[in-house]
Amino acid sequence: MKKLKIGLAGLGIVGKSVYEILLKDQEIINARSANKLELVAVSARSKKDFIDETKVRFVANSLDLANDPEIDIIVEVIGGDGIASEILETAIKNGKKVVTANKALLAVKGLKLATLAEENGGYIGFEASVAGAIPIIKTFREGLAANEIKEFYAILNGTCNYILTKMKNENIDFSVALKQAQDLGYAESDPTFDIEGVDTAHKLTLLAAIASGCKPDFDDVYIEGITKINVDDIRLADALQYKIKLLAVYKNAGSFQAVYPALIESAQKIAQVDDSFNAILTKTSNAGENLTIGRGAGGLPTASSIVADLIDIANDRYSFEFGVKVSDLKNAAISNIEERIGKYFIKLTLNKELAQTQKLDEKFLQEIKAQKTYFEEVPSGHILCAVVTENIKEKNLQQLLKNLDKNLVKDVKFIRIESV
Amino acid sequence: MKKLKIGLAGLGIVGKSVYEILLKDQEIINARSANKLELVAVSARSKKDFIDETKVRFVANSLDLANDPEIDIIVEVIGGDGIASEILETAIKNGKKVVTANKALLAVKGLKLATLAEENGGYIGFEASVAGAIPIIKTFREGLAANEIKEFYAILNGTCNYILTKMKNENIDFSVALKQAQDLGYAESDPTFDIEGVDTAHKLTLLAAIASGCKPDFDDVYIEGITKINVDDIRLADALQYKIKLLAVYKNAGSFQAVYPALIESAQKIAQVDDSFNAILTKTSNAGENLTIGRGAGGLPTASSIVADLIDIANDRYSFEFGVKVSDLKNAAISNIEERIGKYFIKLTLNKELAQTQKLDEKFLQEIKAQKTYFEEVPSGHILCAVVTENIKEKNLQQLLKNLDKNLVKDVKFIRIESV
Repeated sequence: MKKLKIGLAGLGIVGKSVYEILLKDQEIINARSANKLELVAVSARSKKDFIDETKVRFVANSLDLANDPEIDIIVEVIGGDGIASEILETAIKNGKKVVTANKALLAVKGLKLATLAEENGGYIGFEASVAGAIPIIKTFREGLAANEIKEFYAILNGTCNYILTKMKNENIDFSVALKQAQDLGYAESDPTFDIEGVDTAHKLTLLAAIASGCKPDFDDVYIEGITKINVDDIRLADALQYKIKLLAVYKNAGSFQAVYPALIESAQKIAQVDDSFNAILTKTSNAGENLTIGRGAGGLPTASSIVADLIDIANDRYSFEFGVKVSDLKNAAISNIEERIGKYFIKLTLNKELAQTQKLDEKFLQEIKAQKTYFEEVPSGHILCAVVTENIKEKNLQQLLKNLDKNLVKDVKFIRIESV
Repeated sequence: MKKLKIGLAGLGIVGKSVYEILLKDQEIINARSANKLELVAVSARSKKDFIDETKVRFVANSLDLANDPEIDIIVEVIGGDGIASEILETAIKNGKKVVTANKALLAVKGLKLATLAEENGGYIGFEASVAGAIPIIKTFREGLAANEIKEFYAILNGTCNYILTKMKNENIDFSVALKQAQDLGYAESDPTFDIEGVDTAHKLTLLAAIASGCKPDFDDVYIEGITKINVDDIRLADALQYKIKLLAVYKNAGSFQAVYPALIESAQKIAQVDDSFNAILTKTSNAGENLTIGRGAGGLPTASSIVADLIDIANDRYSFEFGVKVSDLKNAAISNIEERIGKYFIKLTLNKELAQTQKLDEKFLQEIKAQKTYFEEVPSGHILCAVVTENIKEKNLQQLLKNLDKNLVKDVKFIRIESV
């Protein structure tokens, strides 16, 4: 039995929870490991009260951990791509194994780091970087390894899911729901990455690389956040029996990768995943469909996945970071969002008088290939109209909407529909 | 890169699918493996048309595979505890790795086989034995390794779930639904193990050992099947907003392990897992709640997990069979079902006249600590009555029901309720 010495860089919410689990769950962790994990040093911008310095060293400069020959494994939970990037790169170059929850960094520099790891006998564990406590990276790389992953649809951002749930259940505006999420600690003071879909896209990029066997390609992922979703959208979607979720969508062997708010039939189980929960619905070649729901964020859930990665290392259980050797990764070829073929939810305001006298509404509905419609008379004397279209190419839909008679319709908006 | 030679024992539905995946998905499998898997020999009672003998040897006596020094890994998909047991034992004694879906064997002899594997440098992969395509064994042993698994509630038998779903949706009797399941190949011609809950108990035993760190203890698991569930039970449960599912229940660090049909609130996601799907709802110490839904049976889904185990072996990814070393497994101490404390659904027929004239119904409802009730007048002039009790110890409930006034009530029956 070897002793594997751990250096923990970062003592924020996740770092503190890693420290806590390594201490309180020592017995379970030891019993489940062929080699012994031992936390020897921690590092953060400032000392923390909860650290017992009789047991672990406090190191002021976290980069020193990455250069410490005594340390076998670095846990990086600082985040961002500044010092975190430097620590990971240095540690890997020094042949250490690293464990991180840093999706923002990995989505962009993951390929470079995985290459370094292969060259230096290192390893990057990053289970915690996607869907917190749900072991989806392990499931994709190992549990479903005997499958082609054909499609997946995932709710990967707890903040957005919380906001959308609140908006629907309490009939409140986006900004009010965001404020509530911030007050409760579900959203950061600068929530841009979450609400603009960037965080979800980072996670999608990592999962998509594993699913497709292609290099992570964050730059080509279409990203649309939830900031333009309003209570009316949610209410009209509900009237047509849909719910709106911020989805990471992966289809066509990875040639479709995108993040956007999407309507899902309310009866679908993934549509019922509310609050800050995450979920991944996976369609595979041999195993059929798999839906996993769990905690996507928070100190202990995220730390649970970090420590699981540590236990994997303590048992010499390794996977290729992106499922296959770096040299075997193909180039991703993500198609433009305009090429998407699917259903759309269109919301617009109809001029009531014109529509009725000239029967333009019927013509219009035919034009946009309406499958389902919902009308509501609004105080202004106009008609609020929601439409579910047939399958149509997004480029064509956009053209069609552009050509609509401006006297007949206004405030035209579309949201994609996913038939999961 | 080593070549790992596989011998496949059994060419039934699952064996055929293993053969198929190993052939058609060779490219994916190779890319995801550090060493090369190669199927060299198969065995079955008779030759099969789909086997290409220019590529693999057909061996008449499957035990020969286990004794063949050329073979590194045995896949056993014969089932039962006859020749399958002999093959596994022989292979393990010969230092081979084995992969099997044989829950019936492992629930009873798993400890002995795991001990043999530890002594001989062997390994038993058995992901396919529980919940088919859902990688729940990997999730318990690895993904959630940094957690105490506090409780789990699982639908582990597709046949029973299919039958219960049909009974509810089509308002048909158990025997009719069973016949349909048999006609569709969802149930065996002798369905005893499925419908009596034994299959579910085998699977529970394996998961419970991993969750608790205790020896598998099939003999002490309380088992009740679905044969006594009738359409009335399902209908009345529905009226009280519950669904009936055959559940494997694990609580109190493993001191509660049991299989029985249980009522779950209809609004719960696991209650909505229908048809032949399996699901596991897990409550953990650090990762919170996790719900996974997927295919629990069928050729390709089961083979998907078998081949995933093979890919683990090809990457030298090993876990202790039951999560910890055999010598570290404690003795299980499963409590008697009579000690269960929980809610109960009671169905009975009330004598209408007596109940009304003597107000016995109110007294009775107080006695059995009714929280919710549902009454239905039946043609006989009696009242069909369904009750949801408060929490009560099962032993006390039984005593209480035994002491009920025989003139007032008859046809008394209870089903356990799980508040998941």
